[in-house]
Order: sequence, then structure tokens, then C-alpha cells
Amino acid sequence: MKLNAKFIDIDSAEPEILLNGQDAAAIGLKENDRINISGTRNVVAIVNISDTLVPRGEIFMPDGLMALCGVSNGEQVDVTYSEKPDSVRSIRRKMDGEVLTTSEISSIVNDIYESKLSKIEISAWLTALYINGMNIDEIADFTMAIAETGEIIRFNRSPVFDFHSLGGIPGNKITPIVVSIVAAAGIMIPKLSSRAISSACGTSDFVETFCDVEIDAENLKKVAEDVGGVFAWGGGMNLAPVDDIVINIEHPLGINPKAQMMASIMAKKVAVGATHLVLDIPTGKGTKVPTIEEAKSYARDFMDLGEKLGIRVECAITYADQPVGNAVGPILEARECIRILEGQDHPASVIEKACDIAGIILDMADIPGGSVKARDILKSGEAHRKFLEIVEAQGGNPDLKSEDLVPGKYSLDVISTKSGYIHNIHNKDIVYIAKTAGAPSDKGAGLMIHLKKGQRVEEGQPLFTIYAENETKLKRAREAAMRSPPMDIEGMLIKRVSSAGIRRCAG
Amino acid sequence: MKLNAKFIDIDSAEPEILLNGQDAAAIGLKENDRINISGTRNVVAIVNISDTLVPRGEIFMPDGLMALCGVSNGEQVDVTYSEKPDSVRSIRRKMDGEVLTTSEISSIVNDIYESKLSKIEISAWLTALYINGMNIDEIADFTMAIAETGEIIRFNRSPVFDFHSLGGIPGNKITPIVVSIVAAAGIMIPKLSSRAISSACGTSDFVETFCDVEIDAENLKKVAEDVGGVFAWGGGMNLAPVDDIVINIEHPLGINPKAQMMASIMAKKVAVGATHLVLDIPTGKGTKVPTIEEAKSYARDFMDLGEKLGIRVECAITYADQPVGNAVGPILEARECIRILEGQDHPASVIEKACDIAGIILDMADIPGGSVKARDILKSGEAHRKFLEIVEAQGGNPDLKSEDLVPGKYSLDVISTKSGYIHNIHNKDIVYIAKTAGAPSDKGAGLMIHLKKGQRVEEGQPLFTIYAENETKLKRAREAAMRSPPMDIEGMLIKRVSSAGIRRCAG
Repeated sequence: MKLNAKFIDIDSAEPEILLNGQDAAAIGLKENDRINISGTRNVVAIVNISDTLVPRGEIFMPDGLMALCGVSNGEQVDVTYSEKPDSVRSIRRKMDGEVLTTSEISSIVNDIYESKLSKIEISAWLTALYINGMNIDEIADFTMAIAETGEIIRFNRSPVFDFHSLGGIPGNKITPIVVSIVAAAGIMIPKLSSRAISSACGTSDFVETFCDVEIDAENLKKVAEDVGGVFAWGGGMNLAPVDDIVINIEHPLGINPKAQMMASIMAKKVAVGATHLVLDIPTGKGTKVPTIEEAKSYARDFMDLGEKLGIRVECAITYADQPVGNAVGPILEARECIRILEGQDHPASVIEKACDIAGIILDMADIPGGSVKARDILKSGEAHRKFLEIVEAQGGNPDLKSEDLVPGKYSLDVISTKSGYIHNIHNKDIVYIAKTAGAPSDKGAGLMIHLKKGQRVEEGQPLFTIYAENETKLKRAREAAMRSPPMDIEGMLIKRVSSAGIRRCAG
Repeated sequence: MKLNAKFIDIDSAEPEILLNGQDAAAIGLKENDRINISGTRNVVAIVNISDTLVPRGEIFMPDGLMALCGVSNGEQVDVTYSEKPDSVRSIRRKMDGEVLTTSEISSIVNDIYESKLSKIEISAWLTALYINGMNIDEIADFTMAIAETGEIIRFNRSPVFDFHSLGGIPGNKITPIVVSIVAAAGIMIPKLSSRAISSACGTSDFVETFCDVEIDAENLKKVAEDVGGVFAWGGGMNLAPVDDIVINIEHPLGINPKAQMMASIMAKKVAVGATHLVLDIPTGKGTKVPTIEEAKSYARDFMDLGEKLGIRVECAITYADQPVGNAVGPILEARECIRILEGQDHPASVIEKACDIAGIILDMADIPGGSVKARDILKSGEAHRKFLEIVEAQGGNPDLKSEDLVPGKYSLDVISTKSGYIHNIHNKDIVYIAKTAGAPSDKGAGLMIHLKKGQRVEEGQPLFTIYAENETKLKRAREAAMRSPPMDIEGMLIKRVSSAGIRRCAG
């Protein structure tokens, strides 16, 4: 059928067009069917129907699709029914519990990436994946297909080490420490991190308070090969880009099918050319992996998958029932991280976790001494020197000092109203308060936690300090702390002690 | 966040709006999240993001949503994050293989009906239903929830009989015959039918060639109570309207989960107040139910479900490996149907099927004689008199004769190029040819099949005649018959014998 193309000012992940219902019926189309639109070029789009908005004889197309199709507003296009892509049949096969072939998996991934599958179809795919899962061979195929939607970096040095943490745990600021120790030992580790999605502060959110994190693939290669270590943001590098589309469908469903999760993580490692990977599996209530048994099962699966992909994987199961260290929020975390590199010997939880992970990497690289050696490199100042080298290579100040990092000038202490022991710290509430204070977009916002689980607190002693960049957000964060007290000590009241002014807190 | 509402000219089944990415991030929103929009009233909508199209500070809303929200173009609204409805959690529970409660099922159905669930969520729901299924109690709850989204008709007469065919089989023109026989025996049977979705001719498509099918609920009651029988269209009566939304999501996935299929069918029976139902289960290659074993399993499930719903269900398993009778297409089917009511004794397959179904209904109503009695009512002319009564009550001509129905004036015979026996008739190809000829929208288009399975054919003898309302469509249908020969006799060639003019064919 010949129709006149009209521009509509909407753009979506899926190429949708609007037809009048009678035209649709005449072509034999129903809503969510596909059509071929022939202008100068052919494009495929998903049909939406509106009798009230679209006059007969017209097709409403978004501008991106018009450009692809090579037509201008008002020009005629030819519209015909288009078969579903073969990948829809493969999605059906996964619904039926079948094992998919390499080429089926690759078709599904490519069709998602090229917008050939609709939201409805991607949702069905993820649901089938969630319920019926994949075997390790399928996940390996899935990983490669995802990696191949984007750039794959090839280093001139080998081996390429990497590490990755499975779960969001607040205050997990170990990345620059691990990278600095490992690179100081002569191992290349081009570590890419993410920004916060639902957390208060991703690694890139605090690293960018003292150097650039948005470097391109070429620069990543150069810094890694020259200096040995990188702590950059992976989001700007077109690595496994299909993931961004998938996340937008997973998110509203609140699911992250295991096969998808494993393939997404490993695809980024394939894309960055990793030969060795240490996987940190934070385990505990409120994390993705609540029990040690599940953590062990994840560890086995990732190691098997690594073998299929030619990446040597070792796993560290870590406890995640309270924040790592004391600082939560970009500048606060950066300061705590750099203080440790400068030689400060606490908080112990950060130092231990960083040295344990670095130790496993040294073991894998056949450097004797493991975590003891890692601690030596940290204590001797070698890690600090390497850290400043990397900071400089990423465009930061080579004379950077922890004091340069100053948190938000509005702060208040939350005081304990009774004496007792800290039973519990709720990660979710800590994140909620820090986000309410403005983190991660307000770099100075966040929390300093003064007491950790099992420690004694006396009545009137500060439990934690909230920082914010303006008074309104500080007030809101205080209210958030009242609504969702993050610490259990047999009751807690919020009392404002200092209203403004910079306060220094021991980390 | 305060934003200025701007109108966009698109409307969709789900209430979608467009935000600028930076505004979305500031509110903490991702694509496909929900927001509350407060104008004069509150509405909930699904977030789409476009940086290029939407300036910061604006929200693009479809006009329907603006009206619901009580704002005009350019007015300010307040936008905040909105939690997912509880039904999303219930969908997750079905993904996890759990049994849902009555209220969970009712929430899901209502949220679909009220556009509170997005396409992504409905797709996940249908996929979970396809994979994990429902037990009979859940399906009964599901049926009631679907029925309650629309009107429920209450008759002053009881019992209310109904029958339903599970599968699309071409040429299945028995409805007016069954209804006329049964109503002539004094049983009330307000039968609602559908139009073709993917077939060449639904019951309503051929019935409307000789009387009105679009009657409202009040008229349906009146005609059924006065005359005893109705053969009308169910689509205009707001019965179980949520189904229309669901079908639009099932269709692109090519799935029809058994629980959804059973609940949709039975919801329409609940809505029409049926107390007794005969279910025809067409069984054979190329139908929904390929084997007798599966047909028996469907029969058991429908009878169990009927018991839960207080509807007495009996099932007829019928063969569906070739068209019923000889005519396919609206006017051709109407003519064949009325000829049988007028006393013509063939095609036998139509008469047998109609009398068998009517016989089961007579049995259920404790009228002795079953299908023999049904045949008597047909032969005696009682069914024909009742048929004309119903036709008149539905606004048709009380002196209607089969000769009044004249098929398309363009026709051609397809001739056998060899002698032999008819092995096979492919329903799908028959439908394809009839649709290509213009059925069901061209009322005169379709096929007359001259030989059925097992019959002997001689070289040069016509196999079937194609009818169309214009020469172009006739030509296309001829090409369709060449591409997809619908009969197997060890090869077949297409030859055009008569190019135009009305041709009479024995039924």
C-alpha cells in the first residue's frame, strides 16, 4: 500500500510507526506486527494503530526512521507486511525449554542490538531466560555474541588482568588501591568501572573527583601499556553496547536472569581482552547472593564459563553485610581511598579487602607472597607512587593529596540516644540517606560512618555524619535517616548537633 | 520536579510519556520506569527518554493522558517516581512457578485492562503463563477476572445453551444450522461468534451477508428470549474486553498460553450467562490440537473448569484435516448453509457436524433422540422456519432464499492435470487462496471445492473454482494457487478455463 510519510516527534528504542486502523486492516496488519517500508531504502518497523490521530493514507514515522528509509516529510512510501525475524522463533524455542544453537543466540543478540526485536519480544526473551536458563555452552555463545556487538580491545602486552565485583556494596572503594598495588608489581590491569545505577556512588563516580575517567579505547591501551594500571569508566567505550538496551527491559521487570548477568559481565571482560579475572562475590543478606552455598555455585559457574572463553577466573567470596570502610559518597570515598594509599592504616576492612583481591591477582601472575606481598607494596609506598602515576596519566594532579578532597560544607551528626552495641548496619538505608543528601551527582554529599558492626556505642556518641552541598538536601537526608534508621542498637533518635561548617571525621 | 506539559500526537495502549534524559536522571528515573504526573488530577505513566526531542523542563504527553491529568498544553505538572503496581510482583511470582491467589490474578487482569501494566510487563506475564501454566483453580479465578472487565448479561430464561469451536477450520458454516435446530426444539441458545482474524471467513463474516450481526446486549436478550436463537457478533458487546489488549501482545509472540486461551473462551461464556456449553475440539494436523490424546486432555480440562464455574461442559472431538463442506468465503458459505436448511442433502460433512453438535445439546437438555432428532428437525423444515424467524429478528429478509446469495462475478476453475485420488487438502493453502481472492472483506470472494479427500479425480476435471469481485484479485488468487497448491494428487497444474461470468457449482 502506498502511504504518505509524516514526521512524528517521538523516538523509541524500537522503530515504531503509526497507521490508521482501516489502512492496517487493508494490509492485513495488527498492532505490534512488522511492516516493510520502502522509500529510497527499505526499513522494518513495528505497527501501532491510531484511528483518531492518523488519517487514512498516511503513515506517521519518527525522524530517525525517515532518515534510514531515505524519505522526507510528505513523500510516498510503500508499506507491506513483514515476517517476524527468525530470532522470534528461537525465543519461542527458549520458552519451550530448548537449548539454542550458537547462530540462534547470535541472531537474537544482533536483532536486539539492531532494533529488530520489539520490547514485547525482548521481554519474552528475558522472561524465558529467567525461567528456563541456559547451559554453560549457551552462556559462552551468549557472551561472545554480546561482546561482538561492540568494540574489542587488543593489547600489545599480555597477560591482561582484570577484577570485577558482582554486587553493589556501599563504600566499596578498593579499585584504585587494587589497581595501584597490582600495577606496582608489574602486572597490567586496565580496570574499567561503572557509575552508580541505583547505588550512592560507583567507582567512576568517586575516581572522577581526582582524575578523568572518560578516556577512549586508544588512551586506555596507551595508559595501560605504559603505566600498567587504569581506573577508568567503561560506559563511554562502546563495549558490549547491546547491554544498555537489555537493561532497560530488565529494569521494569525487576529481573536479571543469571545467564544474562553472567554473559553481560564476561562480555565486557572479553571486550577488554582480559586473560585473567578475579571475581569478587559479595555475599550476605540484602545482596544478590544471600548465602555461601549460592556464592560457591556462582563461583563454579563463572570459572566454567571462563574456561570456555579462555579467561582464567578465580573467585573471592567476601562478606557484604555492612559497608566497606567508613565513607560513602564520591569525595568522602575518594578521600578515604587516597588516605590509605598515603599510609593511613585504617579502616581495616578496606585495606584487607583490597590486599586480598590484589593478593589473588599476584598469585595468578605467579608473583610469590600473595596478600602479604600486596600489603608490603601498599605499606612501602610503591602503590602510592604507582597510583599518582596513573592519576597523572588520566589527566589528574600528580601531587594529589587526600586533603585536597573536601566534602560538602553542610553536615550534621546523628547521635545515639542509648548505650549498647551495633547489631546491624543496613546497606540499603545507608545508600538511601546518602542519595537523599545528593550523592552521587553532588560530589561532596554522603556519609561518614563512625561505628561498625559489633562496636560499643555510648549514649550521646555520634553514629555517623551526613554531608551535603546545600541545607535543603541535608535536611531531607536527616529526615531520611529518621524514617529509615540504618543502624540497630535497640532504638535510635536523630538529633542535630552541628548545623553547618566543615567537620573533620576520622575515617 | 515541575515540568511543562507538551502535547505529542501519538497514542498507545500503554500511557507513555517522553522526558529529557537529564530531567529523568535528576528524578532518578530510567526508561520504562513509572511516574506520577500531578496536574488537576494524578495519573501514572511509563517513561520514555529522548534527549534530542525533549528540551529540559518539558514533558511530552499524549492528549488522552493530558485529559486524564486535567492539564492543557504548556501547563505545569509535578512529576515524581511511582512504585511499580503490586501486580508486577505477582507476575514475578508466576515467573518463579508459584500459584497465584484470587486477588493477585484479579489485580493483574485489572491492571492490564486499566493500562497500568506496560507491554513489557504483559509480555513477561504471558511468557510466564506459557511456560509455567496455571492450575484449574487459578484458571477459574482468571476466567472470572476477565469476564468482570466487561458486561455480564443476565437472561430471564434459563437454561442458557452455548457452543464454541476451539479451532479455525475453513468452511465451518454450522452455526446457523445448529442454532436453528436447537431453538426449534425450544432451547434458548444466544450464540455469539467472531469475525475472521487470520482465517478467510468467520461465522459473523458470512452471517452478515443475509442479516445484521451487530446487535447490542439488550437486543441479544430480546431476540434470544423471544425467538430462542441468535447468531450475532460478540465483538461489539463489551464482553471480556481485556482480551483485546492481551491478543495484541500474544500475536507478535505467536503464543496463546493454554491458561489464557481457556480463560478467554470461558470468560465470554460467563459474560453471556451460559449454563450449558458444547465445546467442539477440531483435531488433526495443522490445527491447535494435533492429536486425539491432546484433544482428550483439553476436553477434561474444560470440563473441570466448567465445573468450577458452574457451567456444564460437554466436548465433541471432530476431525479437521480438510475444510467442512465445499464452500469457503462469506457469500459462498452463506449459500451452502442456507441450501442445507432449505433441504438440500449435501455436503454431508456440514450436515453431520451440525446435527452431531445439535444432538449433544438436545441430550444435555434432556430432549430424547440426540443427533437423530436433530436430523429430523432439519429434514422436517422446522429448523428452516426457525432460521427465517431468527433472520427476521436480526433485521434480515424473512423470505430469504439461497439463490439470493450471488458470489463474485469473476471466477475460474482449477483443473487437474492428471487422474488419481485426492490424498490431502491443505487448510492453510485453501485459506491463503480465498484471502488472496479478497475474502472476507470482499463478500463474494472465496472457493468452491469440488472434490474432497479420498475422491477420484480424472484428468481435466475441475478441482475447485475460485471466485473474486474483480479480475486483479482473481488473477492474484490464481497465482497463489500455483504457488501453494492446496490439494495433493501427485502434482497439479493451474489452467484457466472460464474467464468471467457467473458459474454455478454443485455444493
